[in-house]
This record gives sequence, C-alpha cells and structure tokens, in this order.
Amino acid sequence: MKQSLPFSAAKLNALLDQSGVDVLLASSKHNVQYLLGGYRYFFFEHSAAIGLGHYLPVMGYLKGREVCAFYVGGGDENWGTEVFPIWPERVANVSWSARESARVAAEFLKSAGLTAPRIALEFELWPVAAWECLRSELPDATFLDATEILEELRVVKTEAELHHLRNAATGIVDSMLAAFQWVRPGVTETEIVQQLRVEQTLRGLDYEFALITTGPTFGRGPSPRRIANREILSLDTGGRHHGYLADMARMAVLGEPTALMKDLLQEILDIQQAARTVIKPGALGSEIYDLALQTLKRCPHQKEMRFVAHGIGLIAHEGPRLTATGPVPYADKHAPRPLEAGMVLSIETHLKHPEVGFVKLEDTVAVTDSGWEAFGDWGRGWNVLNVA
Amino acid sequence: MKQSLPFSAAKLNALLDQSGVDVLLASSKHNVQYLLGGYRYFFFEHSAAIGLGHYLPVMGYLKGREVCAFYVGGGDENWGTEVFPIWPERVANVSWSARESARVAAEFLKSAGLTAPRIALEFELWPVAAWECLRSELPDATFLDATEILEELRVVKTEAELHHLRNAATGIVDSMLAAFQWVRPGVTETEIVQQLRVEQTLRGLDYEFALITTGPTFGRGPSPRRIANREILSLDTGGRHHGYLADMARMAVLGEPTALMKDLLQEILDIQQAARTVIKPGALGSEIYDLALQTLKRCPHQKEMRFVAHGIGLIAHEGPRLTATGPVPYADKHAPRPLEAGMVLSIETHLKHPEVGFVKLEDTVAVTDSGWEAFGDWGRGWNVLNVA
Repeated sequence: MKQSLPFSAAKLNALLDQSGVDVLLASSKHNVQYLLGGYRYFFFEHSAAIGLGHYLPVMGYLKGREVCAFYVGGGDENWGTEVFPIWPERVANVSWSARESARVAAEFLKSAGLTAPRIALEFELWPVAAWECLRSELPDATFLDATEILEELRVVKTEAELHHLRNAATGIVDSMLAAFQWVRPGVTETEIVQQLRVEQTLRGLDYEFALITTGPTFGRGPSPRRIANREILSLDTGGRHHGYLADMARMAVLGEPTALMKDLLQEILDIQQAARTVIKPGALGSEIYDLALQTLKRCPHQKEMRFVAHGIGLIAHEGPRLTATGPVPYADKHAPRPLEAGMVLSIETHLKHPEVGFVKLEDTVAVTDSGWEAFGDWGRGWNVLNVA
Repeated sequence: MKQSLPFSAAKLNALLDQSGVDVLLASSKHNVQYLLGGYRYFFFEHSAAIGLGHYLPVMGYLKGREVCAFYVGGGDENWGTEVFPIWPERVANVSWSARESARVAAEFLKSAGLTAPRIALEFELWPVAAWECLRSELPDATFLDATEILEELRVVKTEAELHHLRNAATGIVDSMLAAFQWVRPGVTETEIVQQLRVEQTLRGLDYEFALITTGPTFGRGPSPRRIANREILSLDTGGRHHGYLADMARMAVLGEPTALMKDLLQEILDIQQAARTVIKPGALGSEIYDLALQTLKRCPHQKEMRFVAHGIGLIAHEGPRLTATGPVPYADKHAPRPLEAGMVLSIETHLKHPEVGFVKLEDTVAVTDSGWEAFGDWGRGWNVLNVA
C-alpha cells in the first residue's frame, strides 16, 4: 500500500464477514470520502450529470485483501487524485458514465480472480445502468445492500473527524449570528438565507441548506415573506467542513423578546439540557430520549413540541441510531446499544406557537471519555436584533 | 391543471411516442427542474443521503394525459412546494428513500389504470432499490432509457432560460475578475478558489466547481501551490443561477504579459472568434468545428492546442451535440442537425506551453434569430494583476 488505511480494516473485514460479503463497492460521496480518508472529487461535488452519463466513483474493497483495493474515478479525475493521493494501489480515472464505472470495477474484480463474488452495493444509490453492467459482466455474482455495513463502520469518529465536526459547528453558529445581525425590518426570508450563504462561505464552509421561519408562521422554506418589528426568526442550517456536516438551529427576535418568548425558549433549553445530562460512554440512546421526553411532558407547551436526537457526521442522520421515532423511519435495532466516546449526536427540540411562531434549538454534542462536549455551544438564547 | 405546463407537451408527447414510451419517470435534479418549470427542492440540493435512504424525487408524466401527471417528493418537501407551487395536480411529499419513492410512483401508475406500461427512466441515475420496487409492483412493465428523450426536450431554451444563463455567465465572469484582483504573490491556488467561491456567492450564484492552474503547470485541481510574480493564472469555473449553469474560463498574469503570452492568448482568441462566425439558425454544428479547427491548424502552437464546443444549460454538456470528438464520448448523431435560435453553446480552446503554462478561454454563446450573442463576453484578454 502507498499509505496506511484511513479506517480500521479489521472492523470492516469483520462487518463484511458477518454479512457474508466478499467485495464492497462504495459509490456515495460520503462513503467514498470515508474509505479514502477524506478525498472527495471537487469537480462533481455538486452535480453528477455530464452529457448522457452520470459520475459514479467506485471504491472497491475486497475482504481481507487490502492490496487488491481499487478506485474507479471520472475521466478527468487525475485533477483530484494528484492533489490528494489516495491509498489504493489500483486507480483508474477513466469513466464518463455509471455504466462505464461498473464495467471497469468488474474488470478489477475479474483480474483479482473473483468469479462468483458476493458484492455489497449501496442499493439506494447504485444506478440501473451500472447494475445491469455488473450482472452482465459477472453473471454468477450475488448482491447485498452495503448501507448498514458502512453506517456501522463510520459510527465512532476519529480525532480528525471530530476536528472537522467542531469546525463545522463553530462556523455554522457564527454564520447564523452574523446573518442575524444583518437583518433589518422588511428584509425577506430569501434575502436572509442568501446572507447566511455568504457568511458560511466566508468561513470556508460548504453551504448545504437552510430552513427559516419569520413571525407566526410554520412553513420552513425560504420565502418572500418580510420580517417585521417584534417578530421572531428561526434559522436551522447545515454546512460542511471537509465534508463533515453540522446542522444546527438558533433563534433571534427583532427587538426585545416578550415574556412569552422567553418562556418558550426556556422550555426548549430545559429539554435540550436534560438530553445532554445522561450522555457518556456506556449510556443507552434510549436514556437520552427518556429523560428528554420526561422533561418535555412537564412543559406547559408540550402539545406542540417535538424532540429528536440522532447521529450526525458525513450525512445528516446516521449512526448511532437512538430510537425508532426519528423523522427518518429507522429500525430500532440500535436503541439498546451503549454510546461510545467519539460518537456525535445532533439534538433538536422545536415548538410551534400560534402567536410567536416556530421556536427551535439544535445542537451538536460529541460523546467524550468523561461525558460530552457540545460544539459551537453559544447563541442559544434570544439573539436580539437591531431595529433600524 | 393548476397552471399551464412549463414545457411543450406536444413536443414531449411526440418524443415519447417516437420511443414507444407510455410513462416518463424523471428523477435527476435537472430534469425534475425542467419539467416543473424551475422547481428544485432546496433541502436536498447538495446531498441526497439521509439515514439509510436517498432522496429520489419522481416527476411522473403519462403520455398525452397531462392531467394524470404526478410528483413524489421527500417527506418534508411541503417546505418546498408551498413556496414554489408546482403544476401537477397529484403531489405526494412523503418519501424518505428511493425505494419508497418508487413504490408511491407505482401506486400512481396503477391508479391511472396502467398495468403493463412502457416506462422511461434515467438509467444512469435510477437506483437499484427503486428499480427492484418498480419491477415488483408492476411485474408487466418494460423499461427504456429516458436520458436522450429529456436531452432533446431541453435543447432549445426559452427566454426565461436564456435570462438565467445570461445572469449565470455575467456573474461567473465578474466573479473571476474580482477574484483576480484579490490575488497577490504567494497566495495558493486553494486560497484563490476560496475567494472565487465567495465572489460567486456574493453575486447570488450557486458555486459549482473551479479548475485552476498557476505558473507553468498543467494540473488543474486547486492545490497548495503558491503563485509567484510574472506567473500566469487560469480559472475555469462553473456556477448556477436558478439551476442554469455557466462554465467559463479567463486568464490573468501577475505583472505585465510577455510577448509570448500575448501571442498564445491571441491564437486562442482567433480560434474562439472563428467558431462564432458561423453560428446562426440553420448552420450545422460541424461547421463550427470545421472553421475552428482550420484556424487552429494555422496556429504556431497548434500541437498543444485543443478546441471543444458543446451545448450547455442545466448540465455542463448537453444538447445540441456538435461532434463526436468532445471530452464526453458522444454518438455523432447530432452533428448534421441545424442549429436553432435558443440553443446555447459553450465554446472552449486551450493550449499547454511548457514555459508559460495552461492558457484557456471558454465562452457562452447563444444562437439568436440573426446569428449569435455571447453572454458575459468581457475580460477575455490578459487580466493584469497588481503586484504588491
């Protein structure tokens, strides 16, 4: 190998073995980045379509045979791998379509002597053109879904990953606070989000999305609605640092918050605090939910409140899974699993109040050896905005 | 229908008829946007993965039955469609995975009475999980590739599309010129690209990618290399305005250009100019290539030069296809086809000189009723940078 592997080969080999997999073919941006120690091809970062083809990178890993690992990149991808050398010895930056990527991957597998491999693919992503090609080139192959294998491989973050997540969280919160200070009565939600994009970009983040509400409304898409004096503003936004995502929410008000506004945000702060309290290695995900929901049930505005917690890292909802009740339908298999140091959670509580509007906090909390650390843990009260 | 259709239903029906298609299921960002008149769901604009699923929007169109058109969106996608209402009467914003999107789409097809439809999908994109679901739900369906049908549907741009492409081109060129003026000796390629991202974002564009070289180098990925006095800088960058992409290249030099630098860029300007000369409705794509390549063959540095021209719009290489010699392997079927007003071309020439480096211009040229119009057609000489 040119370099040491950026992940635990022992863990991956064990996961593949448990699932009866001979070969892993990863193709999503996040899993390719993970297996290649941070590499993402900048040219196709935002769009995969070119001509009649779609960019499909293929990171191939043969169980227990790291030396046979290979990478199939785009036709111009030497522009990427010469700046960021990757560890597989076999790199073919030749493909202009998903079908061609699959054909080259099949050649690598055949050259490694595999004739009837059990291949794990990301079924939610791997395209029909590439699937038909693999089945034609390797008629005796069988196929399994790689998604959960790779989620499990990524579940505990390294120091380098925590560094990126900390930087993402810091940048996201600072961007929201800067965008808040730019707001004046009469600016639209769309304009506020545009300013937020600028603030994230100035801080070196890759902007991902923003949800926004102003005043007593609950629709969270950026709209032409104009904020008025004494109205509240909720921002919930994602941005990446070297591919690692922070997704956080903060509140502001145009003028001084009313007593009701203070009460509502305090209820949310109390739930967010309760959720943190139990976080430490060995705690169960369900304990987080139990304590948060007990606190929620004591809140005066509990009927319109919602609490969610989930893992975060290279994608917005990933391992560890803490419950079956998240917004993304999950099996509950991870609920009884103890937390480990290096896992990172996104913890979120919102409420809807007909007079005040949508009130939400979302925080990024890492499990540490001694308990927890919240990244970018400021600006969580009412951010009071200038009224010009 | 809530609204009139944003594309020609007659043209689409004819294209589907020619291909023997009953139903079109479009899922790529660009084709969904096209069929929905500009709509893109902001939340999944940059990443599709969430939890164990991937976001897969499905725009379903039944040949000749516009009233049966449907859209399957993500589980939270009312946040998008309530701000930007879309024309299909049937909208189901319910899906958290590609498999679920396919299941809901199959339900719509069955409720429209289709039992053995001939379905056109984007094979380079449609995922295995969604494919297996469709085949299970509609066991008598047959499948065709939708990619070329949709490319043809999009090939002539409307006034609204030309407006977005003009704004994208203007913003891209202005962003490059602003980034140039920020450069000082000793800054890295990575830092220059970061500044370019900021300039694009400030102008309301969605940054897409940047290729860069400094000094006598040919690797175009942003690297830690520092630019020095008297060196050249090439930028080739893409950015979107409302989804429409401009992809353009401009040159700069730290200090006054040498006589050799002036000669090299003039050779490229001559080829770029020759390529434009023949553009008008009725001209053949091959005429553009013929005249450009004749001019290239008279250039002193012809051995290291390359000319490319291709359609551009919602993706970087799309119809009209002008030749089989582009970087993306194309069939030559469009070469003899006459240009039409409203087609938009990206025209590019580069050369590699061992002492000077990589020299390139890329321009955006629309076919008009009387000939052509180049968008953002400035900054095409040597942009001379301050030497602090």
